[in-house]
Amino acid sequence: MLTIPWKAGAGWGAPEIKPYGPFALDPSSTVLHYAQTIFEGMKAYKDANGDIRIFRPDMNMKRMNTSARRIALPTFDGEALLELIKDLVRLDQHWIPTETGHSLYIRPSLIGTQKAIGVGPPNEALLFVILSPVGPYYPNGFKPVALYGTTEYVRASPGGTGAYKLGVNYAPGILPQQHAAQLGYAQNLWLHGPEHYITEVGTMNMFVVFRTDDGGYELVTPPLDGMILPGVTRDSVLTLARDHLTQKTPVAGLPPKLTVSERPVTMQEVKAAAQAGKIVEMFGAGTAAVISPVDRIGYLGEDILIPTGEGGMGPIARAVWTELVGRQTGAIPHEWSVVV
Amino acid sequence: MLTIPWKAGAGWGAPEIKPYGPFALDPSSTVLHYAQTIFEGMKAYKDANGDIRIFRPDMNMKRMNTSARRIALPTFDGEALLELIKDLVRLDQHWIPTETGHSLYIRPSLIGTQKAIGVGPPNEALLFVILSPVGPYYPNGFKPVALYGTTEYVRASPGGTGAYKLGVNYAPGILPQQHAAQLGYAQNLWLHGPEHYITEVGTMNMFVVFRTDDGGYELVTPPLDGMILPGVTRDSVLTLARDHLTQKTPVAGLPPKLTVSERPVTMQEVKAAAQAGKIVEMFGAGTAAVISPVDRIGYLGEDILIPTGEGGMGPIARAVWTELVGRQTGAIPHEWSVVV
Repeated sequence: MLTIPWKAGAGWGAPEIKPYGPFALDPSSTVLHYAQTIFEGMKAYKDANGDIRIFRPDMNMKRMNTSARRIALPTFDGEALLELIKDLVRLDQHWIPTETGHSLYIRPSLIGTQKAIGVGPPNEALLFVILSPVGPYYPNGFKPVALYGTTEYVRASPGGTGAYKLGVNYAPGILPQQHAAQLGYAQNLWLHGPEHYITEVGTMNMFVVFRTDDGGYELVTPPLDGMILPGVTRDSVLTLARDHLTQKTPVAGLPPKLTVSERPVTMQEVKAAAQAGKIVEMFGAGTAAVISPVDRIGYLGEDILIPTGEGGMGPIARAVWTELVGRQTGAIPHEWSVVV
Repeated sequence: MLTIPWKAGAGWGAPEIKPYGPFALDPSSTVLHYAQTIFEGMKAYKDANGDIRIFRPDMNMKRMNTSARRIALPTFDGEALLELIKDLVRLDQHWIPTETGHSLYIRPSLIGTQKAIGVGPPNEALLFVILSPVGPYYPNGFKPVALYGTTEYVRASPGGTGAYKLGVNYAPGILPQQHAAQLGYAQNLWLHGPEHYITEVGTMNMFVVFRTDDGGYELVTPPLDGMILPGVTRDSVLTLARDHLTQKTPVAGLPPKLTVSERPVTMQEVKAAAQAGKIVEMFGAGTAAVISPVDRIGYLGEDILIPTGEGGMGPIARAVWTELVGRQTGAIPHEWSVVV
C-alpha cells in the first residue's frame, strides 16, 4: 500500500510504499467521529501485450482534489500522486488478473487524523492507496438489475454534498439499500423533489434511451446539478456518443440518428414512455460494472418494465460498453487509456 | 478508554477498560471509506459532596441506538453500556475538574470496522468510549455569538440524516463554518427551503423568545421534523419550561405568562419581529455550551440584531440556564442528574 502523511504547516510528508497492514489511529481521530473521508475508485488492466493500463486517472485525481476542498481536507498534486500510484501498481502487477473482464481495483482514500475531539479542519491527515483484484460484474453474460425508485429517503439535496465523492454519501445509503433488497430490488434509484426527478443510483449514473418520433434515439442522462456525482464513466459515455455524432471518433454499433441530452428526467416521463413503448433501454454507468442494464423500476407500488434487448443489453448500451471496455483494456487504442 | 468489539453472528464481545491508546484499523475498514460512524456527547460533574453526576444519560443511550439503526450499525443494551461508562468514569474520576463550570466530557462512538471494500452492513464494528476534561464555554461571563443564516449550503433535508447523530452530519459543515468565520460569524445557522425556515446550528438547537401582544412571552423552537437533531438540552429546556407552566416544578425567574411552542419559524418572521422590537432574545441549547445567547444573525447581506439582556443573556435564557446547570451539577436535586 501507499501512504502519504500530511501535517498543517509542514504539508505533505514523504510517500511510502510498504506491505499492507493496519493503521495505528488515535481514538479521537477526526475520521472516526465526524466522517472526514473521501475516496476514489479506479481499475488497472493488463492488455494483450502485458502492458498495464489505467483509464482516465487524471479525472479521478481532479475529482479527489475537488472532494478534499469540500470537506476541508488538504489538496495535493494530482500528477504526483498518479506517478506514485503507478509505482505501486507496477510493484504489485502480479496481482492484476489477466482473465477477460478482471482487473486490479485501485482505492485512493484521504482521511482526517487530527487527534482532538473538535469539529474543524484537521491539523493532520493521511492519504493512502490500497489495491484489490476484482472479477467482472457479469461473469456469465449481462444480468439486468431491478431498481427501487426510492421516495422514503434521499441521497442528496440542493446545497448538499451529493456532487462530491465523500464517504458521507455512502453509509447512509445502506439502510435504504436493505429496504430495497427486501422488496426484491437490487439498488436504490434516488429521486429528487415532488416531481421525482431521476438523479443517480449511488454507485452509478443513470442513462435512459428514448425512441424519438422521427425514428431516432435520444440518449438522456440527468445534468450535473449539484446532486449527482460527476462519474468518469458518465463523462466517457457522453463524450464517446458526442464524438460519434460529430464523426470525430465513430463508434461501431451506435446509430447515426442519435441525440445526446443532459436534461432532467422525471419518473412520470419514464413511466409514460415505457407504457407508450418509447423506451429503448435504461442503464447505469460506473467504474465497478462499467455499464449495467436495468429491466425494472419499482415506483410507488408498481413495476415499470424496461426493455433490455438481446442478451440482456440494449443496442445503445452494448455499443457503448463494447467501445468503453475496448478502450479500457487497450484493445481499442485511445488516449483515455494510460499505460503505466 | 472502554472498547467493545462486535462481530456479525457472534454479537457483542467482552468489554474492556484499558489505557488510552491507538486502534489498529485495517486500511479497508468501512469507517475510513464510507463514513460509518455515530457518536454521543455527555458530561460528568463532581458535585459539592464529591459525588459524580451525569445528566440524563438514558437519552444519549437511546439516541445512540436510533443512530446505529439508521446507519446499519449494531444496536446494543443502553443500560448495560451506561453501567460500563459509569465504571470508566469512576476509574478516571481524578480527571473530573472540580472548578465551577468544568466537567469531564464523555464521548461514546461506534464505528464500522469490516475489512472489505464494499458498501453494506459491516460484519465487524467497534464501540468505544473516551474521556476528556473540558472547561466552561464562557469562563468570563456570557459572550453572545453571531450566527450566519446560511443560504449557500444545507445541513439536512427531508428524507436525509439530519435527525440522527451520525458523523456524516459534521465534516460537511466545516467548509461552510470557515466561510461563516471569514464573514465574521461564529457559526452557521442552517436554514431550510425557500422560506428559510430556521433549523439548528449543528452543535446546538435554536430557541427564539417573542414578546406577545398581551405582554407575555412565547418560547419557540422548531419542531423535530426529521431535519433537526433531537437534542437532550433542547428537550430539557422544553420540559423544564412546560413543568414550570403546569406548576409541577416551578423554575425561579421564569415568567408566569409564557407559551411554549414547537413550531416552524422563518427568518422573515425573526427579521420582522426584530425590527418591531418583539424579540426578547435568541439562544442555542446543546451539551457543549448548555445555553448560548445570540446577538446577531447575518442574513442575505444584512445583520439582524437580537437583544441579549443584562450580562449578555436574556431573562428566559438566564432562568433556564441557572436551573439546568443547577440540575446538572447537583446543586438543584432532580431525577435528571444520575449519581455514578
